[in-house]
Amino acid sequence: MEGLESSSVILTGDRPTGPLHLGHFVGSLQNRVRLQHQCQQYIMIADMQALTDYFDRPKHVVQNVAEVVKDYIAVGIDPEKTTIFIQSQIPELCELTMLLLNLVTTARLQRYPTIKNEIQLRAFGESIPAGFLCYPVSQAADITLFRATHVPAGEDQAPMIEQTNELVRRFHYTYQTDCLREVELLLSKTPRLIGIDGNAKASKSLGNAIFLSDSEKVVHDKVFSMYTDPEHIRASDPGKVEGNVVFAYLDAFYPDPEEVESWKASYRKGGLGDMVLKTRLNDTLQALLKPIREKRATIQQAEALEIACAGSQKMRSIAQATMEEVRQAVGIVYR
Amino acid sequence: MEGLESSSVILTGDRPTGPLHLGHFVGSLQNRVRLQHQCQQYIMIADMQALTDYFDRPKHVVQNVAEVVKDYIAVGIDPEKTTIFIQSQIPELCELTMLLLNLVTTARLQRYPTIKNEIQLRAFGESIPAGFLCYPVSQAADITLFRATHVPAGEDQAPMIEQTNELVRRFHYTYQTDCLREVELLLSKTPRLIGIDGNAKASKSLGNAIFLSDSEKVVHDKVFSMYTDPEHIRASDPGKVEGNVVFAYLDAFYPDPEEVESWKASYRKGGLGDMVLKTRLNDTLQALLKPIREKRATIQQAEALEIACAGSQKMRSIAQATMEEVRQAVGIVYR
Repeated sequence: MEGLESSSVILTGDRPTGPLHLGHFVGSLQNRVRLQHQCQQYIMIADMQALTDYFDRPKHVVQNVAEVVKDYIAVGIDPEKTTIFIQSQIPELCELTMLLLNLVTTARLQRYPTIKNEIQLRAFGESIPAGFLCYPVSQAADITLFRATHVPAGEDQAPMIEQTNELVRRFHYTYQTDCLREVELLLSKTPRLIGIDGNAKASKSLGNAIFLSDSEKVVHDKVFSMYTDPEHIRASDPGKVEGNVVFAYLDAFYPDPEEVESWKASYRKGGLGDMVLKTRLNDTLQALLKPIREKRATIQQAEALEIACAGSQKMRSIAQATMEEVRQAVGIVYR
Repeated sequence: MEGLESSSVILTGDRPTGPLHLGHFVGSLQNRVRLQHQCQQYIMIADMQALTDYFDRPKHVVQNVAEVVKDYIAVGIDPEKTTIFIQSQIPELCELTMLLLNLVTTARLQRYPTIKNEIQLRAFGESIPAGFLCYPVSQAADITLFRATHVPAGEDQAPMIEQTNELVRRFHYTYQTDCLREVELLLSKTPRLIGIDGNAKASKSLGNAIFLSDSEKVVHDKVFSMYTDPEHIRASDPGKVEGNVVFAYLDAFYPDPEEVESWKASYRKGGLGDMVLKTRLNDTLQALLKPIREKRATIQQAEALEIACAGSQKMRSIAQATMEEVRQAVGIVYR
């Protein structure tokens, strides 16, 4: 990928609020499997961040940590190449967050575009948990503590990168140091996968996603329940391709894009039935998911947690080294 | 003191933003010297809290840590009885703070009486550092992490105790645990010592305080520059006792209150000069401060820091034990 060198350090991750789905697969997982061969890659399971809005459902967060690790391994992320770790197991993140919180005003935090969107999305109203307001700062700590050089994300995450670098520069200026690193967005161009119901986003919370861990039958049923074109009643009727979920998934997963284009033409004209297309998509997804499901079934809960705990231990050494420099820079070293 | 048992645990402390002065002596230090014989007492030097508003003057905070330790030892706080420690050396405080931040809304934080007052006092305007807004939560972590049962403070700190207990109850309810402890205010009835300029409060930042580390000459000069009654020109004139700094200090430090009352009567009637009173006060303060100054001079910087670092190590074990329970309660334990 452009802009990456072998010395680059990638930080990425997921909130463990549910198992991963095909949206993650096309949006980030495939990319991570490629990137792990190019440079150092760290994947953080952001349980502390998930707790900023799932604070009253901690079990849900905690139980999904192992599920997410299983998903990673199942798609081909190799713990020998990529370090998978758990955010809460790195207490140095909290220390750095607290120091960075002094360098940003609450007014600025409230204007952060990421926060504004998320607050609307979660309908907190006046009841924004303080931890949630602070999470962009926590995110800046996540990135900088491990000296990441690149964060892979979509264009919509550009403000998050800018906020992080703003804090890094503020820290450097205030404490006359250069111990942290500015970070770059590693732009991912994959379009967002829509939900099986036609909703703009496939997401755990909307329940409109095909999970990597779904059984063959569940995948089949989800494919055959997909939203297509409600006015396309008979196979002979002309149909709409735009907003048609089956085509969106064929675009994302069918290996031959030209064939998909020819199907689109027939569908528009009339003469190609939904059932035929859904069968093709089902075959495609089953072929993709079968080896993932099989690999996933071989990973025990304990093994998954062991991988993440070993990764956390490794990341903690890096965290401690950075925090040592951070504390020196601030001056809070007394012996 | 009422309400204390030998099993009680007191947490108290100071922000290391300057050496301690006579206001601290009457307001808290004397009390601490007494309390250390009654139960377990922890004194925290709150460098992290000081950094929430002194973030751009970290040297000032860091350099004052040893000064404050010297002041403690000089007035008779015994490190064998009282554990003196440094907030920044207990990273578990940051972890607990982050978890507690999820349990309070920003709207509630902004309504905290302590925060409202302090924001006005510091004239932050719209530029309230996020760390500053979060500090009541950080304070709740300071108190609860060490399982303190009592915090000695004036009535004005009652809301801080209430905020802390509110968070403890919220944590217990949310995570179905009782691993933290609610805390009680140990009401200190000492009136606040006014400044030598007549300002309502003797404070480091106003430069109107007599420091425990002031030389004999500085103490003398401060006493003789004290604000009295500007209309009391000649000794024979009747003078005002109210708002008269010399009488406020005699009330606080002269060992015989009845004698002070008789001087007040003479002063009101006329016939008692400021110089006579100031000489008496100077003698009183010099007698009080001489042994403190001498003791203080025997303590090296390195020794002071060693005491605080040893104390921090001891407090860290307590912190780790509590955090272990806190993490268990939230569920973020993966091995």
